[in-house]
Amino acid sequence: MTNGSIAAPRAVVLLSGGLDSATTLAIAREMGFECLALSFDYGQRHKIELQAARRVAAALGARDHRIVKFDLRQFGRSALTDNIDVPKNRPLEKMGGEIPITYVPARNIIFLSFALALAEVSDCRDIFIGVNALDYSGYPDCRPSFIEKYQEMAAAGTKTGAEGGSIRIHAPLISMTKAEIIQRGVALEVDYSLTLSCYDPDDQGRHCGACDSCLLRRKGFQEANVQDPTEYAPLEIRS
Amino acid sequence: MTNGSIAAPRAVVLLSGGLDSATTLAIAREMGFECLALSFDYGQRHKIELQAARRVAAALGARDHRIVKFDLRQFGRSALTDNIDVPKNRPLEKMGGEIPITYVPARNIIFLSFALALAEVSDCRDIFIGVNALDYSGYPDCRPSFIEKYQEMAAAGTKTGAEGGSIRIHAPLISMTKAEIIQRGVALEVDYSLTLSCYDPDDQGRHCGACDSCLLRRKGFQEANVQDPTEYAPLEIRS
Repeated sequence: MTNGSIAAPRAVVLLSGGLDSATTLAIAREMGFECLALSFDYGQRHKIELQAARRVAAALGARDHRIVKFDLRQFGRSALTDNIDVPKNRPLEKMGGEIPITYVPARNIIFLSFALALAEVSDCRDIFIGVNALDYSGYPDCRPSFIEKYQEMAAAGTKTGAEGGSIRIHAPLISMTKAEIIQRGVALEVDYSLTLSCYDPDDQGRHCGACDSCLLRRKGFQEANVQDPTEYAPLEIRS
Repeated sequence: MTNGSIAAPRAVVLLSGGLDSATTLAIAREMGFECLALSFDYGQRHKIELQAARRVAAALGARDHRIVKFDLRQFGRSALTDNIDVPKNRPLEKMGGEIPITYVPARNIIFLSFALALAEVSDCRDIFIGVNALDYSGYPDCRPSFIEKYQEMAAAGTKTGAEGGSIRIHAPLISMTKAEIIQRGVALEVDYSLTLSCYDPDDQGRHCGACDSCLLRRKGFQEANVQDPTEYAPLEIRS
Protein backbone atom coordinates (compact mmCIF):
# COMPACT_ATOMS: atom_id res chain seq x y z
CA MET A 1 0.00 0.00 0.00
CA THR A 2 2.90 2.38 0.59
CA ASN A 3 4.45 4.13 -2.35
CA GLY A 4 7.27 2.19 -3.88
CA SER A 5 6.23 -1.15 -2.46
CA ILE A 6 4.15 -3.53 -4.46
CA ALA A 7 0.59 -3.24 -3.18
CA ALA A 8 -1.38 -6.45 -2.89
CA PRO A 9 -4.38 -6.55 -5.20
CA ARG A 10 -7.70 -6.28 -3.43
CA ALA A 11 -10.67 -8.57 -3.65
CA VAL A 12 -14.21 -8.44 -2.29
CA VAL A 13 -15.12 -11.70 -0.54
CA LEU A 14 -18.74 -12.54 0.24
CA LEU A 15 -18.77 -13.87 3.78
CA SER A 16 -21.77 -15.49 5.43
CA GLY A 17 -19.81 -16.92 8.33
CA GLY A 18 -20.40 -20.47 7.15
CA LEU A 19 -17.88 -23.16 6.35
CA ASP A 20 -17.81 -22.49 2.62
CA SER A 21 -17.34 -18.73 2.72
CA ALA A 22 -14.67 -19.01 5.45
CA THR A 23 -12.72 -21.42 3.25
CA THR A 24 -13.19 -19.06 0.31
CA LEU A 25 -11.75 -16.17 2.30
CA ALA A 26 -8.74 -18.30 3.26
CA ILE A 27 -8.21 -19.23 -0.40
CA ALA A 28 -8.41 -15.59 -1.51
CA ARG A 29 -5.86 -14.62 1.13
CA GLU A 30 -3.55 -17.43 0.06
CA MET A 31 -3.79 -16.22 -3.54
CA GLY A 32 -2.30 -12.95 -2.30
CA PHE A 33 -5.41 -10.77 -2.16
CA GLU A 34 -6.03 -8.14 0.45
CA CYS A 35 -9.62 -9.04 1.29
CA LEU A 36 -12.63 -6.81 1.83
CA ALA A 37 -15.21 -9.06 3.46
CA LEU A 38 -18.86 -8.29 2.75
CA SER A 39 -21.84 -9.64 4.68
CA PHE A 40 -25.56 -8.89 4.66
CA ASP A 41 -28.14 -8.24 7.29
CA TYR A 42 -31.01 -9.09 4.95
CA GLY A 43 -33.74 -10.07 7.34
CA GLN A 44 -32.49 -13.59 7.88
CA ARG A 45 -34.17 -15.24 10.87
CA HIS A 46 -30.86 -16.07 12.48
CA LYS A 47 -28.76 -12.94 12.68
CA ILE A 48 -26.34 -14.88 14.84
CA GLU A 49 -24.64 -15.86 11.59
CA LEU A 50 -23.38 -12.26 11.36
CA GLN A 51 -21.45 -12.83 14.60
CA ALA A 52 -19.83 -15.84 12.96
CA ALA A 53 -18.99 -13.68 9.94
CA ARG A 54 -17.30 -11.12 12.21
CA ARG A 55 -15.27 -13.81 13.99
CA VAL A 56 -14.20 -15.36 10.70
CA ALA A 57 -13.27 -12.02 9.09
CA ALA A 58 -11.08 -11.16 12.07
CA ALA A 59 -9.49 -14.61 12.41
CA LEU A 60 -8.65 -14.87 8.73
CA GLY A 61 -7.17 -11.39 8.42
CA ALA A 62 -9.71 -9.58 6.24
CA ARG A 63 -8.59 -5.98 5.80
CA ASP A 64 -12.12 -4.70 6.22
CA HIS A 65 -15.56 -6.12 6.90
CA ARG A 66 -18.74 -4.36 5.80
CA ILE A 67 -22.28 -5.37 6.56
CA VAL A 68 -24.97 -4.08 4.21
CA LYS A 69 -28.48 -3.98 5.56
CA PHE A 70 -31.74 -4.45 3.66
CA ASP A 71 -34.86 -6.43 4.25
CA LEU A 72 -35.75 -9.37 2.02
CA ARG A 73 -38.61 -10.29 4.36
CA GLN A 74 -40.73 -7.74 2.53
CA PHE A 75 -40.56 -10.07 -0.47
CA GLY A 76 -40.97 -13.31 1.52
CA ARG A 77 -41.30 -16.90 0.35
CA SER A 78 -38.24 -18.48 1.94
CA ALA A 79 -37.69 -20.55 5.07
CA LEU A 80 -34.56 -18.49 5.75
CA THR A 81 -36.46 -15.23 6.08
CA ASP A 82 -40.05 -16.20 6.87
CA ASN A 83 -41.79 -18.26 9.52
CA ILE A 84 -41.65 -21.37 7.40
CA ASP A 85 -40.21 -24.53 8.96
CA VAL A 86 -36.70 -25.43 7.88
CA PRO A 87 -36.81 -29.06 6.69
CA LYS A 88 -35.08 -31.46 9.09
CA ASN A 89 -33.43 -34.86 8.64
CA ARG A 90 -34.03 -35.04 4.90
CA PRO A 91 -32.25 -37.97 3.27
CA LEU A 92 -29.07 -36.63 1.63
CA GLU A 93 -29.97 -38.23 -1.68
CA LYS A 94 -33.10 -36.10 -1.80
CA MET A 95 -31.11 -32.88 -1.76
CA GLY A 96 -30.29 -31.32 -5.07
CA GLY A 97 -33.24 -32.70 -6.95
CA GLU A 98 -35.47 -29.70 -6.56
CA ILE A 99 -35.21 -26.11 -5.43
CA PRO A 100 -35.58 -26.18 -1.63
CA ILE A 101 -37.75 -23.93 0.51
CA THR A 102 -34.53 -22.48 1.95
CA TYR A 103 -33.87 -20.83 -1.43
CA VAL A 104 -34.08 -17.05 -1.02
CA PRO A 105 -35.16 -15.53 -4.33
CA ALA A 106 -32.26 -13.90 -6.16
CA ARG A 107 -30.16 -13.78 -2.99
CA ASN A 108 -26.77 -14.48 -4.54
CA ILE A 109 -27.62 -12.15 -7.42
CA ILE A 110 -28.30 -9.36 -4.93
CA PHE A 111 -25.21 -10.20 -2.85
CA LEU A 112 -22.96 -10.16 -5.92
CA SER A 113 -24.45 -6.84 -7.03
CA PHE A 114 -23.41 -5.17 -3.81
CA ALA A 115 -20.02 -6.85 -4.14
CA LEU A 116 -19.70 -5.25 -7.58
CA ALA A 117 -20.52 -1.83 -6.15
CA LEU A 118 -17.91 -2.25 -3.41
CA ALA A 119 -15.39 -3.52 -5.95
CA GLU A 120 -15.96 -0.47 -8.16
CA VAL A 121 -15.35 2.02 -5.38
CA SER A 122 -12.39 0.04 -4.00
CA ASP A 123 -10.56 -0.31 -7.31
CA CYS A 124 -10.67 -4.05 -7.24
CA ARG A 125 -11.55 -6.41 -10.02
CA ASP A 126 -11.84 -9.66 -8.15
CA ILE A 127 -14.86 -10.96 -6.28
CA PHE A 128 -14.98 -14.26 -4.40
CA ILE A 129 -18.12 -16.25 -3.64
CA GLY A 130 -18.24 -19.62 -1.87
CA VAL A 131 -20.92 -21.30 -3.96
CA ASN A 132 -20.67 -25.00 -4.44
CA ALA A 133 -22.48 -26.88 -7.16
CA LEU A 134 -21.57 -30.49 -6.42
CA ASP A 135 -22.77 -31.14 -2.92
CA TYR A 136 -25.89 -29.14 -3.38
CA SER A 137 -27.19 -28.48 -6.80
CA GLY A 138 -30.68 -27.35 -5.83
CA TYR A 139 -29.97 -23.62 -5.87
CA PRO A 140 -30.01 -22.06 -9.34
CA ASP A 141 -27.69 -19.27 -8.22
CA CYS A 142 -24.94 -21.74 -7.30
CA ARG A 143 -24.48 -23.21 -10.79
CA PRO A 144 -21.30 -22.66 -12.85
CA SER A 145 -23.36 -21.30 -15.76
CA PHE A 146 -24.76 -18.64 -13.46
CA ILE A 147 -21.31 -17.50 -12.32
CA GLU A 148 -20.13 -17.32 -15.92
CA LYS A 149 -23.13 -15.25 -17.02
CA TYR A 150 -22.81 -13.00 -14.00
CA GLN A 151 -19.23 -12.22 -14.92
CA GLU A 152 -20.22 -11.34 -18.49
CA MET A 153 -22.99 -9.09 -17.23
CA ALA A 154 -20.57 -7.37 -14.83
CA ALA A 155 -18.17 -6.64 -17.67
CA ALA A 156 -20.99 -5.05 -19.67
CA GLY A 157 -22.55 -3.02 -16.85
CA THR A 158 -19.76 -1.51 -14.78
CA LYS A 159 -17.35 1.36 -15.12
CA THR A 160 -14.44 -1.08 -14.80
CA GLY A 161 -15.80 -3.10 -17.71
CA ALA A 162 -16.67 -0.04 -19.79
CA GLU A 163 -13.11 1.18 -19.40
CA GLY A 164 -11.77 -2.09 -20.75
CA GLY A 165 -11.02 -3.85 -17.46
CA SER A 166 -12.26 -7.28 -16.62
CA ILE A 167 -14.08 -8.32 -13.48
CA ARG A 168 -13.47 -11.83 -12.26
CA ILE A 169 -16.03 -13.69 -10.20
CA HIS A 170 -14.06 -16.40 -8.44
CA ALA A 171 -15.99 -19.42 -7.20
CA PRO A 172 -13.10 -21.61 -6.04
CA LEU A 173 -15.30 -24.20 -4.34
CA ILE A 174 -17.71 -24.66 -7.20
CA SER A 175 -16.64 -28.17 -8.17
CA MET A 176 -15.36 -29.38 -4.81
CA THR A 177 -17.11 -31.81 -2.46
CA LYS A 178 -17.72 -30.70 1.11
CA ALA A 179 -14.93 -33.04 2.22
CA GLU A 180 -12.49 -31.48 -0.24
CA ILE A 181 -13.48 -28.01 0.93
CA ILE A 182 -12.78 -28.98 4.54
CA GLN A 183 -9.44 -30.55 3.67
CA ARG A 184 -8.43 -27.43 1.78
CA GLY A 185 -9.50 -25.25 4.70
CA VAL A 186 -7.64 -27.34 7.23
CA ALA A 187 -4.50 -27.02 5.11
CA LEU A 188 -5.01 -23.24 5.22
CA GLU A 189 -5.52 -23.38 9.00
CA VAL A 190 -9.15 -22.32 8.97
CA ASP A 191 -10.66 -22.76 12.43
CA TYR A 192 -14.04 -24.23 11.58
CA SER A 193 -15.23 -23.94 15.19
CA LEU A 194 -15.70 -20.23 14.41
CA THR A 195 -18.10 -20.92 11.52
CA LEU A 196 -21.85 -21.39 11.52
CA SER A 197 -23.52 -23.33 8.72
CA CYS A 198 -26.87 -24.15 10.32
CA TYR A 199 -30.18 -22.92 8.87
CA ASP A 200 -31.78 -23.15 12.31
CA PRO A 201 -29.26 -22.57 15.12
CA ASP A 202 -30.29 -22.04 18.76
CA ASP A 203 -29.86 -18.72 20.60
CA GLN A 204 -26.31 -19.60 21.49
CA GLY A 205 -25.38 -20.19 17.89
CA ARG A 206 -25.18 -23.96 18.21
CA HIS A 207 -25.99 -26.08 15.16
CA CYS A 208 -29.30 -27.98 15.01
CA GLY A 209 -27.61 -30.99 13.43
CA ALA A 210 -30.65 -31.83 11.32
CA CYS A 211 -31.17 -29.23 8.58
CA ASP A 212 -29.78 -29.88 5.11
CA SER A 213 -26.80 -27.64 5.78
CA CYS A 214 -25.90 -29.37 9.07
CA LEU A 215 -26.25 -32.82 7.50
CA LEU A 216 -23.94 -31.91 4.64
CA ARG A 217 -21.44 -30.31 7.01
CA ARG A 218 -21.32 -33.33 9.30
CA LYS A 219 -20.95 -35.73 6.40
CA GLY A 220 -18.17 -33.51 5.03
CA PHE A 221 -16.12 -33.78 8.21
CA GLN A 222 -16.64 -37.55 8.29
CA GLU A 223 -15.58 -38.02 4.68
CA ALA A 224 -12.64 -35.67 5.10
CA ASN A 225 -11.46 -37.65 8.12
CA VAL A 226 -11.27 -34.42 10.05
CA GLN A 227 -12.53 -34.15 13.60
CA ASP A 228 -15.79 -32.20 13.58
CA PRO A 229 -15.41 -29.13 15.85
CA THR A 230 -19.07 -28.18 15.43
CA GLU A 231 -21.01 -27.46 18.60
CA TYR A 232 -24.43 -29.03 18.33
CA ALA A 233 -27.47 -28.07 20.40
CA PRO A 234 -28.43 -30.79 22.90
CA LEU A 235 -30.69 -33.36 21.28
CA GLU A 236 -33.59 -32.72 23.66
CA ILE A 237 -34.02 -29.12 22.56
CA ARG A 238 -33.77 -29.84 18.84
CA SER A 239 -37.01 -29.49 16.98
CA MET B 1 -47.83 -16.38 -21.26
CA THR B 2 -51.36 -16.29 -19.89
CA ASN B 3 -51.97 -19.96 -20.69
CA GLY B 4 -55.64 -19.45 -21.22
CA SER B 5 -56.07 -17.57 -17.96
CA ILE B 6 -57.74 -14.19 -18.19
CA ALA B 7 -55.70 -12.60 -15.41
CA ALA B 8 -53.38 -9.85 -16.64
CA PRO B 9 -49.73 -10.86 -16.54
CA ARG B 10 -47.69 -9.03 -13.94
CA ALA B 11 -44.52 -7.07 -14.39
CA VAL B 12 -42.09 -5.40 -12.02
CA VAL B 13 -41.38 -1.81 -13.08
CA LEU B 14 -38.40 0.09 -11.68
CA LEU B 15 -39.67 3.54 -10.82
CA SER B 16 -37.45 6.44 -9.81
CA GLY B 17 -40.13 9.06 -10.23
CA GLY B 18 -38.34 10.64 -13.19
CA LEU B 19 -39.59 11.24 -16.69
CA ASP B 20 -38.11 8.06 -18.15
CA SER B 21 -39.38 5.61 -15.56
CA ALA B 22 -42.85 7.21 -15.56
CA THR B 23 -43.05 6.72 -19.33
CA THR B 24 -41.83 3.16 -18.92
CA LEU B 25 -44.60 2.44 -16.41
CA ALA B 26 -47.17 3.86 -18.83
CA ILE B 27 -45.80 1.68 -21.63
CA ALA B 28 -45.91 -1.45 -19.45
CA ARG B 29 -49.52 -0.69 -18.53
CA GLU B 30 -50.43 -0.14 -22.16
CA MET B 31 -48.88 -3.50 -23.03
CA GLY B 32 -51.42 -5.03 -20.66
CA PHE B 33 -49.28 -5.69 -17.61
CA GLU B 34 -50.47 -5.35 -14.06
CA CYS B 35 -47.55 -3.38 -12.66
CA LEU B 36 -45.66 -3.79 -9.41
CA ALA B 37 -43.67 -0.59 -9.07
CA LEU B 38 -40.35 -0.80 -7.24
CA SER B 39 -38.34 2.13 -5.89
CA PHE B 40 -35.27 2.44 -3.70
CA ASP B 41 -34.34 4.50 -0.70
CA TYR B 42 -30.62 3.95 -1.24
CA GLY B 43 -29.09 6.91 0.51
CA GLN B 44 -29.68 9.31 -2.35
CA ARG B 45 -29.21 12.93 -1.27
CA HIS B 46 -32.62 13.92 -2.54
CA LYS B 47 -35.20 11.61 -1.09
CA ILE B 48 -37.85 13.92 -2.47
CA GLU B 49 -37.65 11.81 -5.64
CA LEU B 50 -39.42 9.05 -3.68
CA GLN B 51 -42.40 11.36 -3.31
CA ALA B 52 -42.44 11.76 -7.06
CA ALA B 53 -42.28 7.97 -7.41
CA ARG B 54 -45.31 7.61 -5.13
CA ARG B 55 -47.28 10.22 -7.10
CA VAL B 56 -46.41 8.58 -10.40
CA ALA B 57 -47.22 5.04 -9.20
CA ALA B 58 -50.64 6.21 -8.03
CA ALA B 59 -51.42 8.34 -11.08
CA LEU B 60 -50.44 5.63 -13.55
CA GLY B 61 -52.32 2.84 -11.82
CA ALA B 62 -49.56 0.64 -10.47
CA ARG B 63 -51.12 -2.28 -8.59
CA ASP B 64 -48.53 -2.04 -5.84
CA HIS B 65 -45.55 0.12 -4.98
CA ARG B 66 -42.68 -1.13 -2.84
CA ILE B 67 -39.72 0.84 -1.61
CA VAL B 68 -36.61 -1.13 -0.65
CA LYS B 69 -34.19 0.56 1.68
CA PHE B 70 -30.41 0.16 1.83
CA ASP B 71 -27.54 2.56 2.07
CA LEU B 72 -25.13 3.01 -0.82
CA ARG B 73 -23.50 5.92 1.00
CA GLN B 74 -21.39 3.41 2.87
CA PHE B 75 -19.66 2.70 -0.45
CA GLY B 76 -19.48 6.33 -1.59
CA ARG B 77 -17.94 7.87 -4.70
CA SER B 78 -20.95 9.39 -6.41
CA ALA B 79 -22.38 12.89 -6.56
CA LEU B 80 -25.85 11.39 -6.11
CA THR B 81 -25.05 9.92 -2.68
CA ASP B 82 -22.08 11.92 -1.38
CA ASN B 83 -21.32 15.55 -0.74
CA ILE B 84 -19.82 16.00 -4.17
CA ASP B 85 -21.07 18.87 -6.33
CA VAL B 86 -23.43 17.90 -9.11
CA PRO B 87 -22.00 19.39 -12.33
CA LYS B 88 -24.06 22.31 -13.66
CA ASN B 89 -24.57 23.84 -17.11
CA ARG B 90 -22.35 21.36 -18.90
CA PRO B 91 -22.54 21.66 -22.68
CA LEU B 92 -24.83 18.92 -23.97
CA GLU B 93 -22.22 17.73 -26.44
CA LYS B 94 -19.90 16.92 -23.54
CA MET B 95 -22.35 14.45 -22.06
CA GLY B 96 -21.90 10.84 -22.97
CA GLY B 97 -18.19 11.03 -23.61
CA GLU B 98 -17.10 9.84 -20.23
CA ILE B 99 -18.62 8.29 -17.13
CA PRO B 100 -19.97 11.19 -15.08
CA ILE B 101 -19.55 11.76 -11.34
CA THR B 102 -23.30 11.19 -10.99
CA TYR B 103 -22.71 7.51 -11.84
CA VAL B 104 -23.55 5.42 -8.76
CA PRO B 105 -21.46 2.24 -8.87
CA ALA B 106 -23.50 -0.79 -9.91
CA ARG B 107 -26.78 0.99 -9.13
CA ASN B 108 -28.88 -0.42 -11.95
CA ILE B 109 -27.35 -3.85 -11.35
CA ILE B 110 -28.48 -3.69 -7.73
CA PHE B 111 -31.91 -2.31 -8.66
CA LEU B 112 -32.50 -5.06 -11.22
CA SER B 113 -31.42 -7.69 -8.69
CA PHE B 114 -34.13 -6.64 -6.27
CA ALA B 115 -36.57 -6.53 -9.19
CA LEU B 116 -35.65 -10.15 -9.95
CA ALA B 117 -36.32 -11.13 -6.34
CA LEU B 118 -39.72 -9.42 -6.41
CA ALA B 119 -40.49 -11.00 -9.77
CA GLU B 120 -39.66 -14.46 -8.42
CA VAL B 121 -41.97 -14.17 -5.44
CA SER B 122 -44.72 -12.53 -7.51
CA ASP B 123 -44.74 -15.13 -10.28
CA CYS B 124 -43.88 -12.62 -12.92
CA ARG B 125 -41.36 -12.94 -15.69
CA ASP B 126 -41.24 -9.40 -16.99
CA ILE B 127 -39.18 -6.55 -15.62
CA PHE B 128 -39.20 -3.00 -17.01
CA ILE B 129 -36.40 -0.49 -16.67
CA GLY B 130 -36.35 3.00 -18.16
CA VAL B 131 -32.73 3.15 -19.26
CA ASN B 132 -31.93 5.14 -22.32
CA ALA B 133 -28.73 4.78 -24.29
CA LEU B 134 -29.07 7.44 -26.95
CA ASP B 135 -29.42 10.68 -25.10
CA TYR B 136 -26.94 9.74 -22.47
CA SER B 137 -24.41 7.06 -23.17
CA GLY B 138 -22.09 7.80 -20.27
CA TYR B 139 -23.51 5.20 -17.90
CA PRO B 140 -22.26 1.67 -18.54
CA ASP B 141 -25.38 0.20 -16.95
CA CYS B 142 -27.63 1.88 -19.52
CA ARG B 143 -26.17 0.18 -22.59
CA PRO B 144 -28.12 -2.37 -24.64
CA SER B 145 -25.32 -4.94 -24.24
CA PHE B 146 -25.71 -4.68 -20.48
CA ILE B 147 -29.46 -5.33 -20.61
CA GLU B 148 -28.91 -8.34 -22.86
CA LYS B 149 -26.27 -9.82 -20.58
CA TYR B 150 -28.39 -9.15 -17.52
CA GLN B 151 -31.25 -11.09 -19.02
CA GLU B 152 -28.99 -14.07 -19.78
CA MET B 153 -27.64 -14.00 -16.23
CA ALA B 154 -31.17 -13.87 -14.82
CA ALA B 155 -32.15 -16.94 -16.82
CA ALA B 156 -29.15 -18.81 -15.41
CA GLY B 157 -29.50 -17.75 -11.80
CA THR B 158 -33.17 -17.81 -10.86
CA LYS B 159 -35.72 -20.42 -10.00
CA THR B 160 -37.86 -19.25 -12.94
CA GLY B 161 -34.94 -19.76 -15.30
CA ALA B 162 -33.91 -23.08 -13.75
CA GLU B 163 -37.43 -24.35 -14.26
CA GLY B 164 -37.28 -23.51 -17.95
CA GLY B 165 -39.01 -20.13 -17.87
CA SER B 166 -37.58 -17.04 -19.41
CA ILE B 167 -37.20 -13.68 -17.75
CA ARG B 168 -37.51 -10.65 -19.96
CA ILE B 169 -35.82 -7.38 -19.09
CA HIS B 170 -37.74 -4.77 -21.07
CA ALA B 171 -35.96 -1.49 -21.76
CA PRO B 172 -38.52 0.13 -24.08
CA LEU B 173 -36.79 3.54 -24.10
CA ILE B 174 -33.33 2.27 -24.84
CA SER B 175 -33.04 3.59 -28.37
CA MET B 176 -35.41 6.56 -28.11
CA THR B 177 -34.41 10.21 -27.89
CA LYS B 178 -35.72 12.23 -24.98
CA ALA B 179 -38.13 13.97 -27.38
CA GLU B 180 -39.49 10.64 -28.58
CA ILE B 181 -39.92 9.45 -25.00
CA ILE B 182 -41.91 12.57 -24.16
CA GLN B 183 -44.09 12.24 -27.29
CA ARG B 184 -44.80 8.63 -26.40
CA GLY B 185 -45.64 9.56 -22.82
CA VAL B 186 -47.95 12.39 -23.89
CA ALA B 187 -49.78 9.96 -26.17
CA LEU B 188 -50.20 7.71 -23.10
CA GLU B 189 -51.43 10.66 -21.05
CA VAL B 190 -48.49 10.74 -18.65
CA ASP B 191 -48.64 13.88 -16.52
CA TYR B 192 -45.01 14.95 -16.52
CA SER B 193 -45.65 17.64 -13.93
CA LEU B 194 -45.69 14.78 -11.40
CA THR B 195 -42.20 13.62 -12.30
CA LEU B 196 -38.84 14.73 -10.95
CA SER B 197 -35.70 14.29 -13.07
CA CYS B 198 -33.34 16.70 -11.35
CA TYR B 199 -30.08 15.58 -9.69
CA ASP B 200 -30.19 18.58 -7.38
CA PRO B 201 -33.76 19.73 -6.64
CA ASP B 202 -34.60 22.26 -3.94
CA ASP B 203 -36.51 21.37 -0.75
CA GLN B 204 -39.80 21.84 -2.53
CA GLY B 205 -38.86 19.39 -5.22
CA ARG B 206 -38.35 22.02 -7.91
CA HIS B 207 -35.85 21.32 -10.67
CA CYS B 208 -32.49 23.15 -10.66
CA GLY B 209 -32.60 23.60 -14.43
CA ALA B 210 -28.83 23.25 -14.78
CA CYS B 211 -27.73 19.67 -14.03
CA ASP B 212 -27.24 17.24 -16.92
CA SER B 213 -30.60 15.64 -16.26
CA CYS B 214 -32.47 18.98 -16.25
CA LEU B 215 -30.73 20.14 -19.41
CA LEU B 216 -31.64 16.94 -21.27
CA ARG B 217 -35.21 17.11 -19.99
CA ARG B 218 -35.70 20.71 -21.06
CA LYS B 219 -34.19 20.07 -24.48
CA GLY B 220 -36.47 17.04 -24.82
CA PHE B 221 -39.63 19.09 -24.31
CA GLN B 222 -38.38 21.70 -26.79
CA GLU B 223 -37.59 19.14 -29.46
CA ALA B 224 -40.86 17.29 -28.85
CA ASN B 225 -42.78 20.53 -29.26
CA VAL B 226 -44.51 19.82 -25.98
CA GLN B 227 -45.08 22.50 -23.40
CA ASP B 228 -42.65 21.91 -20.52
CA PRO B 229 -44.66 21.51 -17.28
CA THR B 230 -41.51 21.39 -15.15
CA GLU B 231 -41.40 23.66 -12.14
CA TYR B 232 -37.96 25.21 -11.90
CA ALA B 233 -36.45 26.75 -8.76
CA PRO B 234 -36.16 30.55 -9.04
CA LEU B 235 -32.88 31.50 -10.73
CA GLU B 236 -31.58 33.44 -7.75
CA ILE B 237 -31.49 30.38 -5.50
CA ARG B 238 -29.91 28.08 -8.04
CA SER B 239 -26.31 27.17 -7.32
